Amino acid sequence: MSRIVIKLDEHTFVSPDRIDQITKRIINEKNKGVDVVVVVPYIHLIDEKLRQYAYTLSEKPTQREIDSIRSTNTQIASSLLSIALNKNGFQAISLTGWQAGISTVTPNRNVLIDHIESEKVNNYLKTGVIPIIAGGQGVDQENNITLLGEGGPETTAVGVAVAIGAERVDIYTNAVGVFTADPKIVKTAKKIKQISYDEMLELSLLGSKIIHPRAVELAKKFNMPLNVCSSIEDVAGTLIKGELEMERNLIVRGVAYETDIIRLTVGYESYGHASLASLFTTLAENHINVDIIVQAVIDGVKPTVSFSIEKEVFAEAISVLETNKKQLGFGFADFEVGLAKVSIVGSGMASNPGVAARMFDRLKNENIQVKMVSTSEIKVSVVVPQDDMVRAANALHDEFNLVEELV
Amino acid sequence: MSRIVIKLDEHTFVSPDRIDQITKRIINEKNKGVDVVVVVPYIHLIDEKLRQYAYTLSEKPTQREIDSIRSTNTQIASSLLSIALNKNGFQAISLTGWQAGISTVTPNRNVLIDHIESEKVNNYLKTGVIPIIAGGQGVDQENNITLLGEGGPETTAVGVAVAIGAERVDIYTNAVGVFTADPKIVKTAKKIKQISYDEMLELSLLGSKIIHPRAVELAKKFNMPLNVCSSIEDVAGTLIKGELEMERNLIVRGVAYETDIIRLTVGYESYGHASLASLFTTLAENHINVDIIVQAVIDGVKPTVSFSIEKEVFAEAISVLETNKKQLGFGFADFEVGLAKVSIVGSGMASNPGVAARMFDRLKNENIQVKMVSTSEIKVSVVVPQDDMVRAANALHDEFNLVEELV
Repeated sequence: MSRIVIKLDEHTFVSPDRIDQITKRIINEKNKGVDVVVVVPYIHLIDEKLRQYAYTLSEKPTQREIDSIRSTNTQIASSLLSIALNKNGFQAISLTGWQAGISTVTPNRNVLIDHIESEKVNNYLKTGVIPIIAGGQGVDQENNITLLGEGGPETTAVGVAVAIGAERVDIYTNAVGVFTADPKIVKTAKKIKQISYDEMLELSLLGSKIIHPRAVELAKKFNMPLNVCSSIEDVAGTLIKGELEMERNLIVRGVAYETDIIRLTVGYESYGHASLASLFTTLAENHINVDIIVQAVIDGVKPTVSFSIEKEVFAEAISVLETNKKQLGFGFADFEVGLAKVSIVGSGMASNPGVAARMFDRLKNENIQVKMVSTSEIKVSVVVPQDDMVRAANALHDEFNLVEELV
Repeated sequence: MSRIVIKLDEHTFVSPDRIDQITKRIINEKNKGVDVVVVVPYIHLIDEKLRQYAYTLSEKPTQREIDSIRSTNTQIASSLLSIALNKNGFQAISLTGWQAGISTVTPNRNVLIDHIESEKVNNYLKTGVIPIIAGGQGVDQENNITLLGEGGPETTAVGVAVAIGAERVDIYTNAVGVFTADPKIVKTAKKIKQISYDEMLELSLLGSKIIHPRAVELAKKFNMPLNVCSSIEDVAGTLIKGELEMERNLIVRGVAYETDIIRLTVGYESYGHASLASLFTTLAENHINVDIIVQAVIDGVKPTVSFSIEKEVFAEAISVLETNKKQLGFGFADFEVGLAKVSIVGSGMASNPGVAARMFDRLKNENIQVKMVSTSEIKVSVVVPQDDMVRAANALHDEFNLVEELV
């Protein structure tokens, strides 16, 4: 019997009515004659209160205890869903990370899935039971409860799907799929029918919150199709997979954006002082994620290097630069706030030269100033004034014909 | 290094301040040079809300899922305490039932501890860590999370103490120890310094809520001393153990009571119809606990059997009798409400004939009508009108000299 994994979204658990609705969706799938495994997300609603309580006891609670506390929300949610399915006459059983045989490792600060013993889930499936797995959690070698962190529940869903040989993962979200742009700012945005892992990865990394890049990466590695669809309406969503039938027609598949970008600029007295390696190593060691990097080397002008960071790490970044100023050898530091990043993504780009030029041309015609640029095989990102962001996104959406039903 | 197990009470977790207080108590014990293991109770405050939510989803949620949901409260509480201890510079680590190696079996409806793999707790103790165990939970052979039910956390504390060879279990409560009677109704009640397992068992079974009889039974089996003391004040409590130094001086150690007792009476047409076995088997099969049983066999009078039950099961008991009237062969059923049970307990009783007679005499002098009587080796219970209960308890407390500092 073919198998699917359904990853739920947090909105499923806001009320008993919503749980009832999802129960019917799951039963529908089951009645199609497939084996179903359900993965439950983090429930941040309860989570936050417990976190606050923990922090009244200590300013620095250990990660181990915070993980143990936070794992309970998803555990409770899985049991509630299991109860709702039982009531409808279906055998369902909640499984925590360790009960589902999910082992994790923590090579650095990030908790990763090491392996999944699929035997238990397989055994439940064989006897017609619907396993409801608490997503985003597992146990390490010492049987400590661990949380997979951001994107954890999706990653559990993909990992379990691979382990049990499922044919796809349905990612239920509060959107109805992946769009050519955020419909909130680009009114003509369209739902994308199919998209490649790489394109989805870029969109995720560029701010699309629908699915965490980590889960897309895992799916890509094992070629596991992901179906992003609405948790409310039972309509076709967006299929993320390896090979797309209509890919070659399309140069650009989507427009993404990210707000509250800050540009930091560091200037050196001379080339001899400038060591990009030590600058970015120092920032990385202090866990400051740097996105776009631009180095200006102009004759007769002192060398500078600019890089973009997110607003959240601004204070920390400034402090790190101050502390290490002497050692890093730079003469001055400056910053610019009120910026945003707008990107175009599409795997057809690599074989279509001139896409970036067309992008800059359109932005120039729209009188939008480009502050920084970054390109990859399948995307071009520009940093623009945040006030122009919506206009830029709409213009690019129009420029690359995403308004038509091609996607 | 000698070891103790501390079982906390629920009041510890009502506020961060209380958690801080308990943290200091635990550190005090640790600083005396003993290894400390802490066992955390059920936290009913949070529990109830989740139960209600579960019951909105289904009228009959499975025990498995309810247990999984309810286990999380104690898990969270252990992590919180662990965080508070860490903050004070002590290594502490929370352990769920399965992490602490507690395996359970469910031979009938009751979940029991099967065995405890003490290796993990031992390893933590050897490295100076304070294990904080979530009480009243474990896992069965299929790795399902199970709750031990009523008295579970105390039972975990005793079980773990036995497994790791602790010298005693400190039971923290909101009382300062075990009293000769409930101080709320007998003003002259005194704290008991030492009491035997059997006496404590009788007191527990007779309504003293301080410690569940199940935990006392387990402690008796392995001769594990229990020290019942206040969770607020650090003063001497009551020591429960096997051999008492001053036992032979004391006939009666305490007076216990239970309110809201109902007497049911079933009458038969003739001796041929009366089968006590089938009557009480039927009641037991329907999970109705019967306490005192009195059979009246008087020549020339139709045979009757009376038994006492708690108010909570009254409706169910009547329904069971109605349904099985024909099969059980009785002619009529009657009941009397508004009764209470008053008991005297003391292991000196067995070797002191006439204790029951002295009890009846005193009650007669007080004009208190005795409706039913039950005796064992170490206790005598009488059922009296509930309106006379407080008077009866005080009279007996006085009669057996419990007002003096003998206990």
